[in-house]
Amino acid sequence: MTAITYEHIKTCKQTGARLGKVHTPHGSFDTPAFMPVGTLATVKTMSPEELKEMGANMILSNTYHLWLRPGHDIVKEAGGLHKFMNWDGAILTDSGGFQVFSLSDLRKIEEEGVHFRNHLSGEKLFLSPEKAMQIQNALGADIMMAFDECPPYPAEFDYMKKSVERTSRWAERCLEAHERKGDQGLFGIVQGGEYEELRRLSANDLTSLDFPGYAVGGLSVGEPKDVMNRVLEFTTPLLPSDKPRYLMGVGSPDSLIDGAIRGIDMFDCVLPTRIARNGTCMTSEGRLVVRNAKYARDFSPLDPNCDCHVCKNYTRAYIRHLVKANETFGFRLTTYHNLYFLLKLMEQVREAIMQDRLGDFRDEFFEKYGFNKPNAKNF
Amino acid sequence: MTAITYEHIKTCKQTGARLGKVHTPHGSFDTPAFMPVGTLATVKTMSPEELKEMGANMILSNTYHLWLRPGHDIVKEAGGLHKFMNWDGAILTDSGGFQVFSLSDLRKIEEEGVHFRNHLSGEKLFLSPEKAMQIQNALGADIMMAFDECPPYPAEFDYMKKSVERTSRWAERCLEAHERKGDQGLFGIVQGGEYEELRRLSANDLTSLDFPGYAVGGLSVGEPKDVMNRVLEFTTPLLPSDKPRYLMGVGSPDSLIDGAIRGIDMFDCVLPTRIARNGTCMTSEGRLVVRNAKYARDFSPLDPNCDCHVCKNYTRAYIRHLVKANETFGFRLTTYHNLYFLLKLMEQVREAIMQDRLGDFRDEFFEKYGFNKPNAKNF
Repeated sequence: MTAITYEHIKTCKQTGARLGKVHTPHGSFDTPAFMPVGTLATVKTMSPEELKEMGANMILSNTYHLWLRPGHDIVKEAGGLHKFMNWDGAILTDSGGFQVFSLSDLRKIEEEGVHFRNHLSGEKLFLSPEKAMQIQNALGADIMMAFDECPPYPAEFDYMKKSVERTSRWAERCLEAHERKGDQGLFGIVQGGEYEELRRLSANDLTSLDFPGYAVGGLSVGEPKDVMNRVLEFTTPLLPSDKPRYLMGVGSPDSLIDGAIRGIDMFDCVLPTRIARNGTCMTSEGRLVVRNAKYARDFSPLDPNCDCHVCKNYTRAYIRHLVKANETFGFRLTTYHNLYFLLKLMEQVREAIMQDRLGDFRDEFFEKYGFNKPNAKNF
Repeated sequence: MTAITYEHIKTCKQTGARLGKVHTPHGSFDTPAFMPVGTLATVKTMSPEELKEMGANMILSNTYHLWLRPGHDIVKEAGGLHKFMNWDGAILTDSGGFQVFSLSDLRKIEEEGVHFRNHLSGEKLFLSPEKAMQIQNALGADIMMAFDECPPYPAEFDYMKKSVERTSRWAERCLEAHERKGDQGLFGIVQGGEYEELRRLSANDLTSLDFPGYAVGGLSVGEPKDVMNRVLEFTTPLLPSDKPRYLMGVGSPDSLIDGAIRGIDMFDCVLPTRIARNGTCMTSEGRLVVRNAKYARDFSPLDPNCDCHVCKNYTRAYIRHLVKANETFGFRLTTYHNLYFLLKLMEQVREAIMQDRLGDFRDEFFEKYGFNKPNAKNF
């Protein structure tokens, strides 16, 4: 019995992208899918009802952050993360590894695990494969992630090789420590940076452990986009075709399309919600910085081609006013719109796969959006 | 033709409180009523749909703030405040006077108007009866307020007398300058501090001008509660019984009940929304400071006797976690609950008037809530 299964529906004849469904104990979702990020058991500014309304069936939450606040024991006592935050859809928790390596100070990596300091209090902490499993079992998400090391880009081949080997040993310990295999699916994370040999090594190690799904980690950490695409091209074919493939930390519209084309099923990123809180919006006409003075008397919607609740009811002028005055409701509106934009984009990607024309869709989208221009305003 | 009319339904035999309806160009609302405050064309953290859902039919917005940001010309160009903020219920705008006297520096009061400095930029500004009408006509709220002087408590009799006389002259100029009498009702504001003679003078002056409604101003400015009650006792009988009576800036549960008992129909206050953003909640058991450590593992609702969306779906432990982590959604939940609590309280007040038992209701509520105790935790 496994908590997570992948149902393959169709492969795009033009690109090889996969259309499918992931089944979880809290419902199924169509793939390729984008998962909004709810770091602290809340997708910043949004309610669960709004997430449902915009079409999100799956969200991500962060193990490291919930471990520190409010503490996984409290979430467990509440009946688990779903109940704690009133979200009955699917949830994925990361392993905490990425935050340990990106947020904390004075970390020391040992075979046993990682010593580091709490980025809030400075307190000394220790995270290991066993601890990451214990926390994630307490949180009770549908999908859990193995505890891995995520080295920065670029990393030397020799360091990366040692790191990949350790991540494989840690993955085995994670599987061993995971106590709720029946209702929580644990995904392995393939590392190896930009090195094909190491991605192959990592994929071999991890697929031999038979996880119910696999992530490609260590991308979107500062490397150029063509490096990401190249790595995906030689990595996804190494992963089993009957299990979901998750590209961690990717959420710009161009990379979502390019990832899907390379066989990725799941994505997550703070990008749409983070830029929203800065007043930056994703639109069918490209990036729109709504706080700009030119929108002060612009009574058109954020995106004239969008049919979301925000675009149907509110103007750029009003949203600009709220954002400039630092009014919460302004950030609710930009966040809602950006998440809707990406969820709708994934719907279009799935539709294009169904019609065997994701390559054409990519060209049209990149042209309209300006991603083909040398100075494209990327996110 | 007048934009605002008052329909009297019943007087409470036990207290003299009035049950009625105020009719506006944007719908009617039952009185006594509490109006949530949406200073900058948004009730902080809330959406218009949420306000409707909790039963708000009428909100207040602030002339001074909207004049500075985004500017009344932009709101006018948007089609008025209702359209700008996507609120099809009724709106009342204040005159800007209170903010000029409470927020700004270096003010200089002259017969013509008030010179002062913008509290954001320091820029020199001038507000007069004519200017206040021009701004409010541009905003287009259903109810506008006359531009008055609101002296602090306590004020000397001689100063207050001069102020009341000037406010009366300003009220006349407001009526003269008001250009949309057909679709916006202008209310006069009775001042006079704690002095019965001056309240009488002010009420005489203003009722002779035949406004479609009257406010009692200059209360809730630091005076003890028994002073407020005493002033209301001799002031509301001076106001016409066929027009709505509005007590400005009052929103603590005890004062809402005591104001209704003294013949008040409308109230507004930032209290429920402001304390919510500090994690303080109004409950049937009294004040609850949800960030307190004792709620960390409390999986009961904010108020066990409340049937609002928040109390049906979220726990104190979750809300505490969000509030402590400064997560917007936490403030959405506390704000929603507090506004619901007051709107529900007003429903109970109306029900008690219908049953001629508002005095009994007051006693029961004060007892349960602890307002009878010498060290009652007031808001």
